[in-house]
Amino acid sequence: MKVRFSASAASWEEWAPALRAADSDLSLHQDGDPASFDAIIYAPNGDITDFTPYVNVRLIQSLWAGVEKIVTNKTLTQPLARMVDPGLAQGMAEYCTGWTMRAHLGMDGYAQDGTWRNSTVPPLASERPVTILGVGELGRATAAMLSAVGFPVTGVSASGRPVDGIDVRSLAQLDDVLTSSQILICLLPDTPQTRNLLDARRLALLPQGAWVINPGRGTLIDDEALLTGLESGRPAHAVLDVFRTEPLPKDHPFWGHPAITVTPHIAADTRAQTAAKVAVENISRAMNGQPVRNLVDRNKGY
Amino acid sequence: MKVRFSASAASWEEWAPALRAADSDLSLHQDGDPASFDAIIYAPNGDITDFTPYVNVRLIQSLWAGVEKIVTNKTLTQPLARMVDPGLAQGMAEYCTGWTMRAHLGMDGYAQDGTWRNSTVPPLASERPVTILGVGELGRATAAMLSAVGFPVTGVSASGRPVDGIDVRSLAQLDDVLTSSQILICLLPDTPQTRNLLDARRLALLPQGAWVINPGRGTLIDDEALLTGLESGRPAHAVLDVFRTEPLPKDHPFWGHPAITVTPHIAADTRAQTAAKVAVENISRAMNGQPVRNLVDRNKGY
Repeated sequence: MKVRFSASAASWEEWAPALRAADSDLSLHQDGDPASFDAIIYAPNGDITDFTPYVNVRLIQSLWAGVEKIVTNKTLTQPLARMVDPGLAQGMAEYCTGWTMRAHLGMDGYAQDGTWRNSTVPPLASERPVTILGVGELGRATAAMLSAVGFPVTGVSASGRPVDGIDVRSLAQLDDVLTSSQILICLLPDTPQTRNLLDARRLALLPQGAWVINPGRGTLIDDEALLTGLESGRPAHAVLDVFRTEPLPKDHPFWGHPAITVTPHIAADTRAQTAAKVAVENISRAMNGQPVRNLVDRNKGY
Repeated sequence: MKVRFSASAASWEEWAPALRAADSDLSLHQDGDPASFDAIIYAPNGDITDFTPYVNVRLIQSLWAGVEKIVTNKTLTQPLARMVDPGLAQGMAEYCTGWTMRAHLGMDGYAQDGTWRNSTVPPLASERPVTILGVGELGRATAAMLSAVGFPVTGVSASGRPVDGIDVRSLAQLDDVLTSSQILICLLPDTPQTRNLLDARRLALLPQGAWVINPGRGTLIDDEALLTGLESGRPAHAVLDVFRTEPLPKDHPFWGHPAITVTPHIAADTRAQTAAKVAVENISRAMNGQPVRNLVDRNKGY
């Protein structure tokens, strides 16, 4: 099958090898006669804006999960599928587990200054309660990985309904849960209910020395309350991957703060390795007349 | 039961609460009439050197795995048990997994200098081959935890015999394995065969950017070869918990080296929480006439 790739030049370097690895017969191109293509692999930062001449295209496979930038394009008549990348939840779980381990093992306590600090051995993971706010796909994958390492994990959701064997509490019980959350991971969506959920009062409930890890949404934590809380060790450290404004402005007080680690919204990104397989398989399905996965409903917009 | 605690003053603070938590009826003392005690909990840094007056003691439970400092004591006639702590392998696996995650996620690449570096997303764990030298109890526990996170794990042992489903190669295949070891974890014992196993030639086989994590034995790596290898990125970073001389001397070139992290032999220590349960249960067994676990054979010396 002959496929047109329309995304940024930088993403071509990442995706082309992954797509070809996923299907060695794939004929993949960055340009050519529109009528000659069977499918389009698409991201909004590519060159195609008019889909009219792609008369033989049976599927436009988005590389992005969000399709709000293409779904309103009036020239779009071909079927459109959004990306559901199985690597995304795994990547998020790895990010959360990695930073949890950094906190848990006290890695930052070993300054390389010639002092042999072996007086205290870190406790085992089984003695380090971890709380995950949000038990959707990402929260569940993270809970499973942290449990495999040995941490006692408590989930918090709006309803508090148990999922996949995780001990889940409702948002109404959040205050109580926070008092024993040595590591607090934020994976809630941005809704009116979750905005500034971690405010000054709630942060003050954390145990002394707790870490907060937020790869969810920048709006979950009150920025000013966080800066104040860090002064008293509740929390002692925050690892932040998401922000109200991204990229985080150069003059923002989070940068360079000794108790804050900023990562640039990389906790859960679409991974070429896993997503390329999804894209190629979905195009094959369209070519063979099978039902396409993750098809966008143009009326709903997703 | 009435138990005499004989270890350092510092360890009393750590152990007394854990021992009492393990058995709420335990009568635990730091001194008293020797004839009144049923058992002794012992470490070589305590005050007892003459065991003769402890005529009613049915078990001396060591807090240490190694008993070479007590087994030669001529006043010792009571049964002696060494410590086999189930938390030790877990602690080692946590240490190795935590530092592997730090390497894997490229945590040290996010300087807090106001620069938003989101151009490269780390690969998933499934794309990051990890090699563990040594597949004894510690190596197997570490392999299991890393596999649970998603890393492809290869073990290396003298024989190469497969264990617990780990893909194991023999030491004869080590050179080949090293070429794809993005993270190399050293958990071999110190023997004439393993001394300086990682010499200049073998370190040069590692892929560019590899990390070496050594919580095994300080003698496994040639110190000079490591310093030279770090200059060319093979390895790119070394996390070292064990050294030829401990504590690591203040003027040693490992301290302060930008590509070396020194931790003070804390990767696998006896943990009060898990070991206290073992100690208390073993003393109960002795009191109730049941066979004692991990009894030392005075002739063999362990």
